[in-house]
Amino acid sequence: MKKFKEGDVIGISLKDGRKWFVKLEKRTFGTHKGNINLTEFIDKEEGGKIQTNLGHSVYGFYPSLEEIILYYIKRNTQIAYPKDLGYIILKLGIKEGVKIIECGTGTGVTSLVFSYFVGASGKIYTYDNRKEFTEKAQKLVEEFGMKERVVCKIADIKDGFDEKDADILFLDIKEPQFYIEKVFFSLKPGGTFGIIVPTTNQVSDVLKVFETMELSDVEVSEILLRKYKTNSARLRPYDIMVGHTVYIITGRNFVF
Amino acid sequence: MKKFKEGDVIGISLKDGRKWFVKLEKRTFGTHKGNINLTEFIDKEEGGKIQTNLGHSVYGFYPSLEEIILYYIKRNTQIAYPKDLGYIILKLGIKEGVKIIECGTGTGVTSLVFSYFVGASGKIYTYDNRKEFTEKAQKLVEEFGMKERVVCKIADIKDGFDEKDADILFLDIKEPQFYIEKVFFSLKPGGTFGIIVPTTNQVSDVLKVFETMELSDVEVSEILLRKYKTNSARLRPYDIMVGHTVYIITGRNFVF
Amino acid sequence: MKKFKEGDVIGISLKDGRKWFVKLEKRTFGTHKGNINLTEFIDKEEGGKIQTNLGHSVYGFYPSLEEIILYYIKRNTQIAYPKDLGYIILKLGIKEGVKIIECGTGTGVTSLVFSYFVGASGKIYTYDNRKEFTEKAQKLVEEFGMKERVVCKIADIKDGFDEKDADILFLDIKEPQFYIEKVFFSLKPGGTFGIIVPTTNQVSDVLKVFETMELSDVEVSEILLRKYKTNSARLRPYDIMVGHTVYIITGRNFVF
Amino acid sequence: MKKFKEGDVIGISLKDGRKWFVKLEKRTFGTHKGNINLTEFIDKEEGGKIQTNLGHSVYGFYPSLEEIILYYIKRNTQIAYPKDLGYIILKLGIKEGVKIIECGTGTGVTSLVFSYFVGASGKIYTYDNRKEFTEKAQKLVEEFGMKERVVCKIADIKDGFDEKDADILFLDIKEPQFYIEKVFFSLKPGGTFGIIVPTTNQVSDVLKVFETMELSDVEVSEILLRKYKTNSARLRPYDIMVGHTVYIITGRNFVF
Repeated sequence: MKKFKEGDVIGISLKDGRKWFVKLEKRTFGTHKGNINLTEFIDKEEGGKIQTNLGHSVYGFYPSLEEIILYYIKRNTQIAYPKDLGYIILKLGIKEGVKIIECGTGTGVTSLVFSYFVGASGKIYTYDNRKEFTEKAQKLVEEFGMKERVVCKIADIKDGFDEKDADILFLDIKEPQFYIEKVFFSLKPGGTFGIIVPTTNQVSDVLKVFETMELSDVEVSEILLRKYKTNSARLRPYDIMVGHTVYIITGRNFVF
Repeated sequence: MKKFKEGDVIGISLKDGRKWFVKLEKRTFGTHKGNINLTEFIDKEEGGKIQTNLGHSVYGFYPSLEEIILYYIKRNTQIAYPKDLGYIILKLGIKEGVKIIECGTGTGVTSLVFSYFVGASGKIYTYDNRKEFTEKAQKLVEEFGMKERVVCKIADIKDGFDEKDADILFLDIKEPQFYIEKVFFSLKPGGTFGIIVPTTNQVSDVLKVFETMELSDVEVSEILLRKYKTNSARLRPYDIMVGHTVYIITGRNFVF
Repeated sequence: MKKFKEGDVIGISLKDGRKWFVKLEKRTFGTHKGNINLTEFIDKEEGGKIQTNLGHSVYGFYPSLEEIILYYIKRNTQIAYPKDLGYIILKLGIKEGVKIIECGTGTGVTSLVFSYFVGASGKIYTYDNRKEFTEKAQKLVEEFGMKERVVCKIADIKDGFDEKDADILFLDIKEPQFYIEKVFFSLKPGGTFGIIVPTTNQVSDVLKVFETMELSDVEVSEILLRKYKTNSARLRPYDIMVGHTVYIITGRNFVF
Repeated sequence: MKKFKEGDVIGISLKDGRKWFVKLEKRTFGTHKGNINLTEFIDKEEGGKIQTNLGHSVYGFYPSLEEIILYYIKRNTQIAYPKDLGYIILKLGIKEGVKIIECGTGTGVTSLVFSYFVGASGKIYTYDNRKEFTEKAQKLVEEFGMKERVVCKIADIKDGFDEKDADILFLDIKEPQFYIEKVFFSLKPGGTFGIIVPTTNQVSDVLKVFETMELSDVEVSEILLRKYKTNSARLRPYDIMVGHTVYIITGRNFVF
């Protein structure tokens, strides 16, 4: 089993279900069950256990991408949810070795998620014209050891992309309809694309452009995640659920 | 860009949107727009175009996992959908290098999907007590070049698993409640698990066992995928949608 | 208990769950379990039982509105579903004594449903510019004994309505955005309105007009009905469900 | 148009969208836009307008059932939602003249809602073994002028109902499975029934009893209401929605 290294982002969990996601550094972390000496986790095996100064057990673990997305990355801008990104990965054919161009970078969360699945031979080129986002995303992918796989660029989408023949194009920008034709030059024949937008008006705007383009397999979908209370004798969905995140527009780039 | 090789599973697509997923062999494939000489695709670049004998363009492409799951793999048994598997991948933390134990193998679809994301350093041990399923799954993972990553075993879950310290445990069996305590011995501390079942009764049965086990982060969820008609001026969901596939039970194995 | 009268629309049901909805006339009705002499139901008590000529029991009953909508009324045009109409009734405050203006009449299904709930003191004025629809709707409300409560008018919505001070306005037309300001003159202060449209574009078009009008309590909603298989030991939703019927726009007419 | 009378429950609404539901009495009602002298609404026409002491317009209106349910009735116990009750009304065939037996009374909200649709010739017999609920429900139906239509009884369901030949039976109790066979003696042949329960376990328990009973048209369903933000240029569902209220079990009582 892997051992925790200084600088890793790890999850720490108490028996009462409370958990936190922290960078593993030589410092103390305070909780309602006492202080945790994070240093003790360094070189400890994944899944290992230490004690707070009050004698409560604390487990360390590597977080899943779902936890990284929902709990570790600060939600400065609206972000796609694990439910959406998981579907997008299978739908767009994200896998080892693919070259992805993405715009905008935003929090860097999609770049990070995609980087987990493209392997050492894959590459993500992510564009944003806002320097502060790009810098933050750069730091994020470095933090998770994905620096080699993700190239963060500060540039405006209206100038198109430097790369050609991407396997996959992913857009998460406000007015994608104005840039589609231009940026699609960077997508290889047969490549797939994904666009996420929060409103139905934006979906219509994108589809209107697509109707002039003869693309293939254009689909619009949304994913709803419904969680259940976990009492075996009283199984029922939670009273409240997330009602909407984004619409997902996907397709393949054939020019007949 | 990659070139198609004999033996690859490729997608072929006509302008009218019809597509098929076939093994690339030196043979002819008949369509309503004429015959396609598949041999012409061998050594052609991904996204390349040939003509049917009636002069219609045909594109070749590597299918996404979504297409492989929904269109290429025969649905002999109920299968999890891309919407579910995508979420499961992010939720369980499936990524390069992880060791997964799965039961049952079924069609092999989940083994195949997981194999795409564990990389060359990861491994999937998949169990089934039905020889015919195991053989078919073995053939499937070979077909997609994932033979090294997936170990198919014919064995009964009631005997437990040979491996220990799995990062992830995934169960898709009829009565998981009877085997949970036994097979959880193969899951490392801090490891994650996923169980999919189609009925609420099964969810309750599983939760009842979990209530005796002090697991962490137990969640039950379901994923709904809603597709929209892609007319920009008349955007609306399809009249009919998939109303249910499976409930997804997940959690993490801490023993406090 | 009420007795069936000649001319009533009744439901007849066999033990195997097959049911039909027919006008009660002195005639024979053929089924796979033998012929039913409908005449025998006349003057029989509601819930009564007769035999087919092959000796199978057949029950007679008065259909619910849900059954009338889904099974008796022919679906010549897209119709609102019981799930939608039930919500609309409670949302718009449809009850005894209210005056409703509706456009268009369509199949007459909403006029009929509303007529059940406005009582003898209520009234529905329903407009359509297509004579064939109006005639059919007129026949429908007569068939169910609601002639006194429903006034069918052949007229174009662009000319507005003859009536004033309606309690409730209900629009089920293609381009409601063009007529809203005009027809709202017929809605009393504090009156409620409902508009149903199938596409998001139409919802946006209507809201755009509303944004110039200072209406109160404007809401847009949709209702999803999910049915479950009724096996107690294997409870689960049906694989397939209705994914969309209409968006429902409602509000109240205050002029501040 | 109707005039407001002392003792009516009315809605009052300010321009900013704030609204309240109050009993119309000779008193003052304080708001953030000044005091409202409710007395001024007495004998005023429905939809009429008065001024606060600070000069802001206030409209009076009769609330819809949706508003009565959601905003006026105190939610001491879990209640069915308008989305559910609307569907139930059409599904069970609630209309003028029907005789309904209900248990338990709870807040009285379903009795009140049903009373609006059974007319002067219909009747609702509602049972509860908790005196405090019965008294409160009695007061509620009186408040809305439905005293003649609703008979509130303090009795235990295990003793069955006094009435026979009900058109409709409605159960909202914790363990309906124990009482179904007994209370179904009070339902006429061909009568309809509705049972609401919050958990899947309860649905299974009820279905298990039904499987011994040869009922007709047994259905299990749930209703999801999804609301949209009403910005015409940015149409999208709300981020958060109600994820669950109750499962609805319905059917018809034929004894073949």
